[in-house]
Amino acid sequence: MSEDAFLLDLLARVPTDDPALVVPPGDDCAALALGADRLLLLAVDQLVGGRHYVLDGPGAASPGQAGRKLLARNLSDIAAMGGTPLYCLVAVALAPSQDEAWLSQFFDGVLGLAREFGVHMIGGDLARAPGDAVASLTIVGDVGGGDVCRRCGAHPGDLLYATGSFGGSLETGHHLSFVPRCREGRWLAESGAVTAMIDVSDGLLLDCARLCRMSGVTGRLDLDAVPSAVPGLARGRVLGDGEDYELLFTVAAERVSALRAWPFADVPLTRIGRIFPPSGVHVADMSGTPLDVAFGGYDHFKNSL
Amino acid sequence: MSEDAFLLDLLARVPTDDPALVVPPGDDCAALALGADRLLLLAVDQLVGGRHYVLDGPGAASPGQAGRKLLARNLSDIAAMGGTPLYCLVAVALAPSQDEAWLSQFFDGVLGLAREFGVHMIGGDLARAPGDAVASLTIVGDVGGGDVCRRCGAHPGDLLYATGSFGGSLETGHHLSFVPRCREGRWLAESGAVTAMIDVSDGLLLDCARLCRMSGVTGRLDLDAVPSAVPGLARGRVLGDGEDYELLFTVAAERVSALRAWPFADVPLTRIGRIFPPSGVHVADMSGTPLDVAFGGYDHFKNSL
Repeated sequence: MSEDAFLLDLLARVPTDDPALVVPPGDDCAALALGADRLLLLAVDQLVGGRHYVLDGPGAASPGQAGRKLLARNLSDIAAMGGTPLYCLVAVALAPSQDEAWLSQFFDGVLGLAREFGVHMIGGDLARAPGDAVASLTIVGDVGGGDVCRRCGAHPGDLLYATGSFGGSLETGHHLSFVPRCREGRWLAESGAVTAMIDVSDGLLLDCARLCRMSGVTGRLDLDAVPSAVPGLARGRVLGDGEDYELLFTVAAERVSALRAWPFADVPLTRIGRIFPPSGVHVADMSGTPLDVAFGGYDHFKNSL
Repeated sequence: MSEDAFLLDLLARVPTDDPALVVPPGDDCAALALGADRLLLLAVDQLVGGRHYVLDGPGAASPGQAGRKLLARNLSDIAAMGGTPLYCLVAVALAPSQDEAWLSQFFDGVLGLAREFGVHMIGGDLARAPGDAVASLTIVGDVGGGDVCRRCGAHPGDLLYATGSFGGSLETGHHLSFVPRCREGRWLAESGAVTAMIDVSDGLLLDCARLCRMSGVTGRLDLDAVPSAVPGLARGRVLGDGEDYELLFTVAAERVSALRAWPFADVPLTRIGRIFPPSGVHVADMSGTPLDVAFGGYDHFKNSL
């Protein structure tokens, strides 16, 4: 099957009944007409075979699980802004060993999750890679202008909260099956209580440091309060395993009561620290002792450079 | 250098003084506020080492040329819609042999061309690939709602035109140095004369067939009229080499006079055929004899599946 034929076949499975989608998939570009009172959100993330998932042995992912994960990672980025995902564009460079069936199952994974979250695929590109498969996805979403949650809004005195639990994502399969926190992120954004937010993809400690660096503050973590996803897991792994895809956010102390209305009984919300004035370090324990980010935190780039 | 550090370094080189860019790079997502009277254009394209360029031997591309080409290919897609490119997001999975210097030069190529075309990079992702480098770029542009040029608007009686010349792109280095036809595409869109448009990336014959298929018509090509980029080049190569990145478009016969005002003296405009009612084939010669698209036309996917 040619690229054209494959894409036509694929696009026939994608809904195009969105009135804002003035030029639907199949043209050089898709064209969107969006209202001016919303902000458009865009992000890109990629998934590399043998790195973000394996296809053989223990913990192996099916092609569909790999496709699902690619979109889920991007949805988590939209969630972290308090946004609603709308569209995605997907580029896949296939490994020599991968055939059309693999690619079809991969897109089954993308499109299955896309349907659940109301996301339309509006563009794609396919190629062959000499090495392992590499896929990338650009997500497009929107958010009310007054609701958008950035990394840079945390202030001294704010309290630090997280959804869900942390660590062990590879062993438990969480990295393949997690449900992106879009619903929760939107609720938090609309609550007006959140001052800064980030999704935890590379480890709680590293992503907390990112939020604090962007905000110009120090975060102090109550290490005993951080929920572990696996009983008995070493603290370093809870803080550093990554691929948790939970939301980490800060709330002004006087707005904390807004969180009492948290409607998601199945998703724990835990206070795990507090924001302090800048101190030269980004993360510390509650006594102020600096925590070494290298202690945990997976940097997909650094760890392999 | 970590991914964070590299991206911060990189983003410091990217202009962020656009008032519509409400959340600039460095957050989970960038957020844009756009007016409702324009259409937003999005497309993604990728570049695979050893396939879309080589780094050694005859015709070798520098990392900067590879980065430039990645963006240029995407700009050509915006040009084909009659749009103006605005933003891009870039994902790169590096080969084991490639280091930070390679990556930095690669982005020099992306950002140099981005500056020339007024494009802001608003997102990125970096990873390691076990095999060769794979890069993808999502382009975001806009176009006036009444100006957008699609593939599907050609009607019987329309005349078929092309910018520039065709064939020999690899040998001449055109595939690395071409200037995307954004200026020309915008002029054509605003002229009101164009009924359908596409950019020629995979060979004139194949891309003409795509336009005609989407329009439900037959295109007849005046084979002797198609300008060759290389004197004496075999016709099959002129029609099929691809990587020309020229614009192919149709004009209603009664609007052809609008093209007399064509202001780009350095870019030839050539009438190369005419549109006929559907006949079961998408492209034919002027006598109506079907032309086999497989005769030329490079399908990056099919040719290697």
